[in-house]
Amino acid sequence: MEPARIRQLLEDVAAGRVDPAGAYERLRLLPYEDIGFAKIDHHRSLRDGMPEVVLGEGKTIEQIVAIAERLAERSDRMLITRTGPEAYAAVAGRVPGVTYHAAARCISLNRSPGALLPGIVIVAGGTADLSVVEEAALTAELIGHASERIIDVGVAGIHRLLAHLPQLQAATVVIAIAGMDGALASAVGGLVAGPVIAVPTSVGYGAAFGGLAPLLTMLNSCATGVAVVNIDNGFGAGYLAARINTLAHQRPD
Amino acid sequence: MEPARIRQLLEDVAAGRVDPAGAYERLRLLPYEDIGFAKIDHHRSLRDGMPEVVLGEGKTIEQIVAIAERLAERSDRMLITRTGPEAYAAVAGRVPGVTYHAAARCISLNRSPGALLPGIVIVAGGTADLSVVEEAALTAELIGHASERIIDVGVAGIHRLLAHLPQLQAATVVIAIAGMDGALASAVGGLVAGPVIAVPTSVGYGAAFGGLAPLLTMLNSCATGVAVVNIDNGFGAGYLAARINTLAHQRPD
Amino acid sequence: MEPARIRQLLEDVAAGRVDPAGAYERLRLLPYEDIGFAKIDHHRSLRDGMPEVVLGEGKTIEQIVAIAERLAERSDRMLITRTGPEAYAAVAGRVPGVTYHAAARCISLNRSPGALLPGIVIVAGGTADLSVVEEAALTAELIGHASERIIDVGVAGIHRLLAHLPQLQAATVVIAIAGMDGALASAVGGLVAGPVIAVPTSVGYGAAFGGLAPLLTMLNSCATGVAVVNIDNGFGAGYLAARINTLAHQRPD
Amino acid sequence: MEPARIRQLLEDVAAGRVDPAGAYERLRLLPYEDIGFAKIDHHRSLRDGMPEVVLGEGKTIEQIVAIAERLAERSDRMLITRTGPEAYAAVAGRVPGVTYHAAARCISLNRSPGALLPGIVIVAGGTADLSVVEEAALTAELIGHASERIIDVGVAGIHRLLAHLPQLQAATVVIAIAGMDGALASAVGGLVAGPVIAVPTSVGYGAAFGGLAPLLTMLNSCATGVAVVNIDNGFGAGYLAARINTLAHQRPD
Amino acid sequence: MEPARIRQLLEDVAAGRVDPAGAYERLRLLPYEDIGFAKIDHHRSLRDGMPEVVLGEGKTIEQIVAIAERLAERSDRMLITRTGPEAYAAVAGRVPGVTYHAAARCISLNRSPGALLPGIVIVAGGTADLSVVEEAALTAELIGHASERIIDVGVAGIHRLLAHLPQLQAATVVIAIAGMDGALASAVGGLVAGPVIAVPTSVGYGAAFGGLAPLLTMLNSCATGVAVVNIDNGFGAGYLAARINTLAHQRPD
Amino acid sequence: MEPARIRQLLEDVAAGRVDPAGAYERLRLLPYEDIGFAKIDHHRSLRDGMPEVVLGEGKTIEQIVAIAERLAERSDRMLITRTGPEAYAAVAGRVPGVTYHAAARCISLNRSPGALLPGIVIVAGGTADLSVVEEAALTAELIGHASERIIDVGVAGIHRLLAHLPQLQAATVVIAIAGMDGALASAVGGLVAGPVIAVPTSVGYGAAFGGLAPLLTMLNSCATGVAVVNIDNGFGAGYLAARINTLAHQRPD
Amino acid sequence: MEPARIRQLLEDVAAGRVDPAGAYERLRLLPYEDIGFAKIDHHRSLRDGMPEVVLGEGKTIEQIVAIAERLAERSDRMLITRTGPEAYAAVAGRVPGVTYHAAARCISLNRSPGALLPGIVIVAGGTADLSVVEEAALTAELIGHASERIIDVGVAGIHRLLAHLPQLQAATVVIAIAGMDGALASAVGGLVAGPVIAVPTSVGYGAAFGGLAPLLTMLNSCATGVAVVNIDNGFGAGYLAARINTLAHQRPD
Amino acid sequence: MEPARIRQLLEDVAAGRVDPAGAYERLRLLPYEDIGFAKIDHHRSLRDGMPEVVLGEGKTIEQIVAIAERLAERSDRMLITRTGPEAYAAVAGRVPGVTYHAAARCISLNRSPGALLPGIVIVAGGTADLSVVEEAALTAELIGHASERIIDVGVAGIHRLLAHLPQLQAATVVIAIAGMDGALASAVGGLVAGPVIAVPTSVGYGAAFGGLAPLLTMLNSCATGVAVVNIDNGFGAGYLAARINTLAHQRPD
Repeated sequence: MEPARIRQLLEDVAAGRVDPAGAYERLRLLPYEDIGFAKIDHHRSLRDGMPEVVLGEGKTIEQIVAIAERLAERSDRMLITRTGPEAYAAVAGRVPGVTYHAAARCISLNRSPGALLPGIVIVAGGTADLSVVEEAALTAELIGHASERIIDVGVAGIHRLLAHLPQLQAATVVIAIAGMDGALASAVGGLVAGPVIAVPTSVGYGAAFGGLAPLLTMLNSCATGVAVVNIDNGFGAGYLAARINTLAHQRPD
Repeated sequence: MEPARIRQLLEDVAAGRVDPAGAYERLRLLPYEDIGFAKIDHHRSLRDGMPEVVLGEGKTIEQIVAIAERLAERSDRMLITRTGPEAYAAVAGRVPGVTYHAAARCISLNRSPGALLPGIVIVAGGTADLSVVEEAALTAELIGHASERIIDVGVAGIHRLLAHLPQLQAATVVIAIAGMDGALASAVGGLVAGPVIAVPTSVGYGAAFGGLAPLLTMLNSCATGVAVVNIDNGFGAGYLAARINTLAHQRPD
Repeated sequence: MEPARIRQLLEDVAAGRVDPAGAYERLRLLPYEDIGFAKIDHHRSLRDGMPEVVLGEGKTIEQIVAIAERLAERSDRMLITRTGPEAYAAVAGRVPGVTYHAAARCISLNRSPGALLPGIVIVAGGTADLSVVEEAALTAELIGHASERIIDVGVAGIHRLLAHLPQLQAATVVIAIAGMDGALASAVGGLVAGPVIAVPTSVGYGAAFGGLAPLLTMLNSCATGVAVVNIDNGFGAGYLAARINTLAHQRPD
Repeated sequence: MEPARIRQLLEDVAAGRVDPAGAYERLRLLPYEDIGFAKIDHHRSLRDGMPEVVLGEGKTIEQIVAIAERLAERSDRMLITRTGPEAYAAVAGRVPGVTYHAAARCISLNRSPGALLPGIVIVAGGTADLSVVEEAALTAELIGHASERIIDVGVAGIHRLLAHLPQLQAATVVIAIAGMDGALASAVGGLVAGPVIAVPTSVGYGAAFGGLAPLLTMLNSCATGVAVVNIDNGFGAGYLAARINTLAHQRPD
Repeated sequence: MEPARIRQLLEDVAAGRVDPAGAYERLRLLPYEDIGFAKIDHHRSLRDGMPEVVLGEGKTIEQIVAIAERLAERSDRMLITRTGPEAYAAVAGRVPGVTYHAAARCISLNRSPGALLPGIVIVAGGTADLSVVEEAALTAELIGHASERIIDVGVAGIHRLLAHLPQLQAATVVIAIAGMDGALASAVGGLVAGPVIAVPTSVGYGAAFGGLAPLLTMLNSCATGVAVVNIDNGFGAGYLAARINTLAHQRPD
Repeated sequence: MEPARIRQLLEDVAAGRVDPAGAYERLRLLPYEDIGFAKIDHHRSLRDGMPEVVLGEGKTIEQIVAIAERLAERSDRMLITRTGPEAYAAVAGRVPGVTYHAAARCISLNRSPGALLPGIVIVAGGTADLSVVEEAALTAELIGHASERIIDVGVAGIHRLLAHLPQLQAATVVIAIAGMDGALASAVGGLVAGPVIAVPTSVGYGAAFGGLAPLLTMLNSCATGVAVVNIDNGFGAGYLAARINTLAHQRPD
Repeated sequence: MEPARIRQLLEDVAAGRVDPAGAYERLRLLPYEDIGFAKIDHHRSLRDGMPEVVLGEGKTIEQIVAIAERLAERSDRMLITRTGPEAYAAVAGRVPGVTYHAAARCISLNRSPGALLPGIVIVAGGTADLSVVEEAALTAELIGHASERIIDVGVAGIHRLLAHLPQLQAATVVIAIAGMDGALASAVGGLVAGPVIAVPTSVGYGAAFGGLAPLLTMLNSCATGVAVVNIDNGFGAGYLAARINTLAHQRPD
Repeated sequence: MEPARIRQLLEDVAAGRVDPAGAYERLRLLPYEDIGFAKIDHHRSLRDGMPEVVLGEGKTIEQIVAIAERLAERSDRMLITRTGPEAYAAVAGRVPGVTYHAAARCISLNRSPGALLPGIVIVAGGTADLSVVEEAALTAELIGHASERIIDVGVAGIHRLLAHLPQLQAATVVIAIAGMDGALASAVGGLVAGPVIAVPTSVGYGAAFGGLAPLLTMLNSCATGVAVVNIDNGFGAGYLAARINTLAHQRPD
C-alpha cells in the first residue's frame, strides 16, 4: 500500500531482519484490526491525520459501542455520525469524554483539542439545514479547522447573501448547503474565487424528491469552481473542506 | 359552453325563434370547423382575443398547410410553433403575408398589427436559450404585448442581473428562462414584486437530463410568486404573460 | 438592492449627511435582522405588502416560536405553513392573536384585517385536496384577497365542472388543484380566458408517485395559460394568485 | 395446452390409435413452425381467430420477408407493424396482395375481407396522434371490426369532445389516444359507460418525457373503466378493442 | 350532457313547459348534490347502473361518514375503498347494513343483492396480493358479477398456472394481479383469447420500486389483449371487468 | 412438465394401467397442494433438492403459520425470509424444531443437517450489510453449503480487501454485498476468476435512493464475470451461489 | 496481487536472488503493458485463461487497431465487441486471421481453436434479440464453450418454451435474453435447476424505456436462481456462463 | 459587489470626486460588456485570474465568433469548450493564435504562456474517457497548472491503479474520471490524503443511462474527500483542481 513501507520491508527481508513468511503476514495484517463484524482502520487515521469516523446509521447500538470502544483505545479523536441520544448514552458508559451534538446528531471524542485553523465558511439556505451545517462544522473541527457559519441566506433574498460578501471572499473554501432549489451554490460560486463544496439537503417537499432537485441544480451549476457531495452529507463536505484548507496552510515546497 | 349564449339560445327556443332540433345542432356544431384530421377552433380565438395557434411538431407539412389555410380564411393573426423553413415555404405559397422567425422556429401571420402594450420583461440565463426567448416574445407580440429582453444574466454573475434591477422591478410580469441549474428564476423571484413565469430549457448536458434539472429547480424555488411551464415552452410563457399583462391594463370595475 | 434607496443614500453621502462607512453599514445591515439560526426579512414585507411567511416544516418548535415572536414585533400579518397544533400552542403562548387553521395546517396572525379583493377562484378535484385548497385560500386572504372555492369537480364528472362555468369565467385568476391524473388543470385552462395556476397534489396512490403524475400532466397541459407550482404548494399558488389579482385591481397608468 | 386436445390425445393413446412416443412428439411439435430465427405460431391464429402479427421494429428486411412468406402460406390475414416502405417493397415482391399503410406504418394482407362489426370508436387528442390511430384501426379491421375515428378533441377544447357525445355513448368500446397531458382518457372515461382503452403517445416535448407524462395520467385516471396499453401501442389497443367488441356481438349462452 | 335529456329540455322550453331560466338551472344543478367538501354524483349511478364509490384514502372519517350517509339515502349499493375498521365503525353507526371486508380494506352496502353473472376469473401471483384480489372481486360483486379466484400461480411455477387452463380459457375476461416481476400477465395473455386486465401490485422489495417493476412489465407485455390499471388498483380492474362482462351478457342488437 | 413423467404416464395409459381421465387429473393435480390462499409447491423441492422457501413479507402471521405447518409435514428443510420474532413465536408453537435468526430476519427448519460443501465466500462492504450477509449464508447452508464471511472490506480501504485475496481466489463462487457506491463488486470481480454474484443493499442515504445507486454500479461493473440480484436479496444470492457451487462439486460426465 | 508470487518474490529477496529495488519494480510493472492511451492487461488473460477483450464502443478506429495489434502479438484469442465493419477492415489490415461477426457486431481472433465444452443453452424472446444472442455465444466460444440457441420463445407463447424443456433442463447454465416484458427469465428460472443468467435487451418501445422494463422484471424475478447483467450485455452473460460451465467440467478435489 | 470598490466609490462621492448619478451608473455598468445576445464578463477574469470561458454547445458559430473576438480584445487567454472544427475555422479567421484541441473538442487562446504549477494528477478509467481527460487538462493548463495523466486504470484491474500509487499520493489534488460503474473515484479516494474531484462520464451503455450510474456511484462514494461535478464536465473539474492547487502554492499568511 505505502511504497516506502513496502520498500523498507523488502530491505528488511533482504537484510535478514524479517523472514519472508513474517513479511507476508505483516503486509496482510498491519493496517487494521478485525472485530468480527467490522474492521477498525487504524491505518487511515495515521495516514491522514484524520479522526476515526463511524457512520452510525444502519448499525445497532451494540455494534456502535463495540467499535467506539476499540477506536478509543488507540485514537484521541473519534466521530460517530447519524446517531441518536440512546447510542450516545451507551457509548458514554464505556468511553469517557465523549460529547453528543444534538443538532448534528453526532457523538464526538476529542482528547487532544488544539488551535483551529481558520479559512472555512459554511453558508446555508435556511434554518432547516442546520443539522447538516453542524455535522460539517463538527467534522472540520475534529480535524483541526474552525468554520464560520452564515445561515438563512437563500437566493430569494440575495441581499442577505451579498451582505456577507467580504466574509465569503475572504474564505479559503466555502461550503454551500441548501435544499429546495439549491440555487445558493451557484450564487456563491459566482461570488468567490476559492473552491465551493455544495451540499444538497433533503429539506423541501413535493418535487424536491428528497434532495434530488437541489442535487441536480448543484451538479448543473452555471458557476465554476463548484463540486457536490451526497444529499445531507455534511460530514463529507466538512472533511473535504478540511483537506483543502490544510493545503492552504501548508508552506509550499 | 358560454352561459350567456346558452341562455340566449334557450330564450330563442322559448320564443319560437329557433326550434329545438336546430338549437341542438347549433350547440353541437358552432364552435369549430372539422377538416378531417384536425378541428379548427375559431371559437377560442373569438373568446380569448388570442391568435390561432398550431403546434407544428409532429404534423406533416401538408397538414400544417391545410390548417394554416383554413385559419387564415377567418383570422387575422396566426402562430405556428416548432416548425422549420420547409414548412414556411409551403405555407407562404398558400397564405400571403406570413413571416418566418428563424431564431424562434415559428411562422406568424399578423394582418392587424397594432400598438403593443408594455409590461413584459424576459430574462434569460444564456445565449443558448435564445430560441425560447424569441418564441415567448413573438407569442406575446401577436397577442398585442411588447417584451423587453435581458439575455445572459445567470446567477453565477449576479451583478449582471442586479444591473437590470430597475427594469425588472418596473415590469408587470417577468418571464425567467434558464437551462442548466435554472437558478435564475429564484434570483429574479426574490427581486421583484410581480408574478414570475419560469421556463426551464433543455440547454445543458449530463445531469441536466434534457431540462429536468432546471425544471425541478424552478418548481422548488425558494422565492415566492414563481410558477413554471413546460421545458422549452416559450409559447406557453408568452401566452400566460400576455394574459396577466392584459389584466394589468384593464381598468378595474 | 432598491435603486431609489441606493441613489438616496449616495446623495446623502454626497451631501455629507451620511459618511461613507456608515453608508456601507446601512447597505449591509438594513434589510433583515439576524437571530442566529434565521434571518428575519422585514424588508420583503415592506417591499411587497406581503405578510411575513415561515415554512414550518423542518424547523423545531423552539425555532418557530423564536421566529414568530420577532416577526410579530414588527409586522401585523404573519403566516406559518406546514405546522401542527403543538407549534400553535407554543406560539400562542408568546404571540397573542394567532389562529390555527387545522385543515390548512397553518398558523396565522392578522392584526389589521381589511376588506378582501374579489377575483380568485379555487377549483379542486376532490375532498382529499382540501388542505391544499385551504392553504392557498388562507395565504391569499392574508394578502387581502378573497377566494371562492369549488371542490370535488374532477374531469371524470365534467358536468360538475361545467355547472360552475359562469363562476370560473368571471374569475380574474383561477387556481386549479388536483392529484391523481391532474387533468382538471387542462379542462379549466380550456374554459377560461384568465391565467390558471395549477397545483398538483400528492393525493393518489401507486403510479401517482407522490404527485409526480399530476405534476407532469399539468406541465404538459394542452390548454394554454396554465403554469404550475410545486406539489402540494398551496401557499405558492395563493401568493401568486394574489400578486396577479392585485394587478387586475390596480388602475393602469 | 388445450385440455380438449390433451384429453383426446390421451384417449387415442389408450385406444392404441396413437403410440406414446408419437403422442409426445405431437404435443411438442404441433403448435408452431420453426424457421431458425423465428417460430411461426400458426396455433394462435387458429385459436383466437386473429391474424398473424409481426412487430417489424428490430427485424431486418430479410427476416421480415422470410416470416411474411411463411405466414402467407398458411394464413389469409397478416399484419406487420412499425415498418417502412422498403420492407413493404421487399415483402410485396414475394407475397402478392399485401398493402402498405403509410400513416399507420404497417403492411397488411387480407385475402378474406368480410363485413366489419361496428362498435369501436377511436378518439384522439390531436393530428400528431394519427399514426397511432391508424395502427389501431387497421388492427381492428383485420380482425373484422370497423372503427369510427374522432380526431383533435383534446380536453382543452372540451366542447369539441362533448359535440361527439352521442357517438361516444353509442360505442361498445372506446379507444382514447393522447399525448402531452393525456387528459382525454379521463374526460372520455367520465362520459361513457363502456370500457375505455387508453393509449398514451410520445407526442409532446420537454416534460412529456417520450410519453411518460400521458402514461402516468392515464394510469391515474380519476375516471373508472379505463385501462392503459404501452406508449404508442395502437396495435395493442386495436387488438384488445376487437376482443371486447367480439364479446358484445356474441349471443350469450 | 345527455343528448336525449338536452333535447327533451329544449322541447319543453319550446312548448312553454319550462321557462329558459329554469331550464338553465336544471342543466346546472340536476346531476349531483353538493355537501360542501364533496359533490355526490347520483347521476353516474343512474347512468351506469353502478354502485356509488368513494375512495376512502385521504378523507377524514367525518368526511367519509357524511358522504356515506348521503349516498345511502338515495342508493342501494355503495363501496368505500382503502379504508379501515375505524371508518367502518363510524359509518356503521349511521348507515345500517354496511359490511366491512378486512382483506379488501373496503366498506360495502348492498341492499338489493341479486344473482351474480359469471365470466370473470381473477388470477394472482401470490398470497401477498390478496387484498387487491379481494378489492377487485368485491367491486365486481357489487355491480352484479361473480369472480372465480385462482391464487398463487406465479410464472416461476408455470405448471400451477397451466393446471387452471380450462378455467382460464372459459373466462369472458381475466384479471391478472401480480407484484415483483409481473410476468403473470404475459403468461395469462398468451393462454387466453379474451381480454386480460393486468393489475401490478406493490408487493415486492428493492428494485420493485413500489410496483413500478410489474407496472412496466405489464405495459410491455409481449402478449396481446392485455391492458393495465394503476398499481394496487383492484377496484379499477373489478369495475372494468364488470363493464366488459356486462357486454358479453347483453344480447347483441 | 417433466418429459420423463409425461412419457411414463402416456405409456401407462397405452398399457391400460391408467385411464385417460385419471391421467389428465394426475397431470393437473400432482405438483402442488392448494390451501386456498397459497399453493404449496412440493414439486420444486423434489426437483431441485432445495428447501421449501416462503417470503414472509406481505403475509399475515396466520398465513405464514398455515403454510409452514403444511410444508413441515412433507419436507425436512424450510426457510421463511423477511419475517420477525412474532411470526417465529407463532410458527414455533406449531412446528417443533424451527430456529429464528435475528440478524437474517429468517425462520429456518432443518431436520436433516449434513456436512456442508465448501466453496462459497461472502464479502460485504460494511457492518450495516450484515442482515443481507446472514440471509445469504443461511440460505446456502440449508441447501448444504458453507459460506466464509468477510465483512467490512469496502473499496475505500482496498488494502483490507487485498489482505483476503488468497481466500477470495480459492472460492468457487463469491457473493459481493455492498450498499452506497457498490464498488466492491467491481473490485472483487477484477481479483477472482470464478463467478461473482453481486447484491446491492439499501444501506446508505441521500442519492443512494434505497439501493438504486449500488444496483446501477453493479450492473455497469467494468469487471467481467459479475451478475446482479435484486436489492437486499440475500436469499437469491445464496440460492444461486449454492446452485453454482453444486455444479463444481459434481463429477463431470 | 497473487500471494504465491509475492511469497516467492520475498523468498528470492531473502535469498539474495533479487534485490529490494528490483523486487519493487517487478511488483509494480509486471502485469500490463502501457501504450499511452490504454493499458494492455496480459495478466488477466494468463490468470483466467480468457481471451483478451476490448469494448469497441467509444474508441476511435485508430485506438482499436493499436490495441488489437498489441494484443495479437502476445495472445492467440481476442474479442472486440460493439464495433462495426469499418473497424474490422482496419484491424484486418494489420492483424491477419481476424473474423467479423455482423450479427454480433464483434471482431474475433482465435488462432488456437479447440473442442468446445457443452452445457450452455441460450434462450431468447424474439428475433430482434439476435445480436445479443450472438455476442453471448461468440464470447463463450472464444473461451472454449459451445452454446445451443433457442430463439423466439417468449412467455406469450409458453408452449414454444415448454417444447424445449428437455434441452433446457439438460443445460448446465442457461442464458435467458429478452426485451419488452422480460418475463422469459422468470419462466425459464421456474423450469430449470441450474443457474440462469438473464440479459435484458433494449428491444421494445415506449415504456420499455431502452431496456429498463425488462431489467426491472428480471431483477424482481419470482423465480430463484436468476441473476442479471447489464442491458444488451451479451458479452458479460457469455463470459459468466463460461466461467460457470468451466466449474461444472472440472473434476472436484 | 466588491466591498473595497464600493467603499472607495462612496468615499469618492463623499469627497465630491464622483457625483451620485455617476456613481450609480458605474456600479451598474462596470463589470461586463453587452453585445446583445451575450454579456462578456471581463470582471471575472480580472477577479479570478482565470481565462475567459465560453460553453460552445448550444451557440451558433456566428455567436461563438462574435464572443471570441470581443474576449480576445481584452484578454490573453480564452477557452471555448464543446465545439467542433467548423467553429474553430471560423474563429481562427478572426482571432489569430487560437488552437483547436480535437480530443478535448476545445478552442484555446493563450498569448501569455508561462511556467505551469505541478500538483494535479488526472486518472481515468478507460480510453473512451479521453475527451473528458483532455478538457480537464487543457482547462488547468490555461489557468497555469500542469496535469499528469494516468489512463485506463479501472477498478477491475486494481493492480494497474496500485502501480501508480506513489504518483497519486504525491498529488496535491486528483481528478478521477470514469464512466460505467464509476468505482474508480472510491478506489482513488481510499488511497490518497488530498482532495479528489470525481467526474462521471457518459461512457457505457444500457443501465449506465448516459452517465447516471457513475454519477450516483461517485456521490455515494464510501471514500471520504471526494466531491463530484457534472457528467462529462472536464472543464469544471480542471477549473476546480486549479483553484485548489493554487491554494497549495500560496504562501500561508
